[in-house]
Amino acid sequence: MISELAILDLVREDLDRVEQKMRTMGESAYGPLAEAFLRLLGSGGKRLRPALALGTFGFFVDRASEKAVALAAAVETLHNATLVHDDLIDGAPVRRGNITLNAIWNRGATVLAGDYLFARAAGFAAETENIRVVQLFADTLRIICEGELRQLFSTRQWSQPKESYYPRIFAKTASLFASATRSAAILGGASSEQEDALYEYGYHLGMAFQIVDDILDYSGDETVLGKPVGGDLRQGIITLPFFHFLQTSPDPQGIIAMLEREPDGNGDGVGEVVALVRASDAMALTFQEASDFTEQAKADLERLPAGPYQDALRQLADFGITRHL
Amino acid sequence: MISELAILDLVREDLDRVEQKMRTMGESAYGPLAEAFLRLLGSGGKRLRPALALGTFGFFVDRASEKAVALAAAVETLHNATLVHDDLIDGAPVRRGNITLNAIWNRGATVLAGDYLFARAAGFAAETENIRVVQLFADTLRIICEGELRQLFSTRQWSQPKESYYPRIFAKTASLFASATRSAAILGGASSEQEDALYEYGYHLGMAFQIVDDILDYSGDETVLGKPVGGDLRQGIITLPFFHFLQTSPDPQGIIAMLEREPDGNGDGVGEVVALVRASDAMALTFQEASDFTEQAKADLERLPAGPYQDALRQLADFGITRHL
Repeated sequence: MISELAILDLVREDLDRVEQKMRTMGESAYGPLAEAFLRLLGSGGKRLRPALALGTFGFFVDRASEKAVALAAAVETLHNATLVHDDLIDGAPVRRGNITLNAIWNRGATVLAGDYLFARAAGFAAETENIRVVQLFADTLRIICEGELRQLFSTRQWSQPKESYYPRIFAKTASLFASATRSAAILGGASSEQEDALYEYGYHLGMAFQIVDDILDYSGDETVLGKPVGGDLRQGIITLPFFHFLQTSPDPQGIIAMLEREPDGNGDGVGEVVALVRASDAMALTFQEASDFTEQAKADLERLPAGPYQDALRQLADFGITRHL
Repeated sequence: MISELAILDLVREDLDRVEQKMRTMGESAYGPLAEAFLRLLGSGGKRLRPALALGTFGFFVDRASEKAVALAAAVETLHNATLVHDDLIDGAPVRRGNITLNAIWNRGATVLAGDYLFARAAGFAAETENIRVVQLFADTLRIICEGELRQLFSTRQWSQPKESYYPRIFAKTASLFASATRSAAILGGASSEQEDALYEYGYHLGMAFQIVDDILDYSGDETVLGKPVGGDLRQGIITLPFFHFLQTSPDPQGIIAMLEREPDGNGDGVGEVVALVRASDAMALTFQEASDFTEQAKADLERLPAGPYQDALRQLADFGITRHL
């Protein structure tokens, strides 16, 4: 399905330049690291974030400048850096079907490999030679880290308010989406109205994407996910489906008591709660919120010039919520 | 002895501004973190690196600009970020007599706290609004991470060439010193000759400082060091005293065999090797190298205007090698 994404076709050539730029990073790294980095970068994922940056740039300039390519590489490298540290924190042995660095290296090397990717991402951002882009980059990194810390400190806080969810997923996902679109708008020479519209598009798109991710964690097929359903809840991370479930449950305290009885998150009780959430109206309520964010993202695009980039970014927004069907 | 450092007196007021800037960072952090960050920042150390940046800036401008203060804060925050991750990697429970984050928090929180400090450091660097400074900052972070990885992968490689030592300590220490002086020179409006002279001063000073640190690891008083003598060798990290010792030893293979027999680095054999190094001519040979770097640092200063800053930075260079006496 992903290959049907118009945005990927539109920016294909520029995306190849980003890929090449990131691969030189792997090759120039210290010998023993080079192979590991190349595998890490090769495992790749969808490259949605750089495509988003390049697609935004496309509104203003036909072919991506070197600086736009550097920005897209910065965004994707920053994303990869956070994944390396996340995998270490979660102790995840596999991501996207590939063995994580964490599983083959020791703790120290994995911490440093993530730091190295942060450094390279900062270097790519500096290559844009635009101080606003650099400031936005640093700010986004801060928001992401603060969000991760917040998530860590709110683990297994079953009674936290639903309102704590939105800043958390902004930090985790939407901040980087929105920073990618705003930065590309800045480099492309957007007017300040267009820049704001693109920032908001990135924000709304990112929020919808993360909510759908959080839905898939409950509703997905274990063989497709490559991990057990309800992984978030098992780790004590509360996402929107669970908030809705608890709010509509006749016995929220009973549910919390079930979770409290299994502090390691691996028991039958947690599995039972996951099944209850999965079968509840909470799923539809959550999906409705993702859908609302998607509609807002599409409305943001109306403030930008019509044409292939507007169409492709609109389709990307729709893809965000249909990919789980 | 540190209070006798003229550079600290010269930049005292501006150093207080750096301190304040760093403390607002702690206060604005996510609640549970604020206290930990403030303790971390308060444990402080000598603040040599920001003093170096401010002292360099002093050649050109009387009172530090906001941007110079931001640069000094960036340098010190980056340094602290690397310490947090280093302590995690080493599993160190104490640094400078203070309990490390690593000892009180779990692994995940410590990784993220270091990341957060990297983010804040990048933000401070961006506040200089100078793209060359930002690029230098990103480059230095990359060099530091690559150096740490290199060190990790060369652990217990007893036969590595002595030449591998210099790039390793450049990465670990001198790169940040040199980046602090060059960045301050750029912000101060130095000529390109002055900028180069200050870069080289920072480089030579940093090399001398690290060599003396590596001497102190063998020769220091355990009660002052707060850790066992020979900690580097016990961790499998080879520093200059050991390289000299091995080169002048009649039986280098016998020494290596002793170390090989104790893979955990905690046995009597390692202790015996440490004592042999400590009592050998290697210490004087190593000190001579630190002294040579110090002389070069002082020569670099001759290319800069005479006055209180030149005097203070000259004294700092001398302090670098006398502090162990």
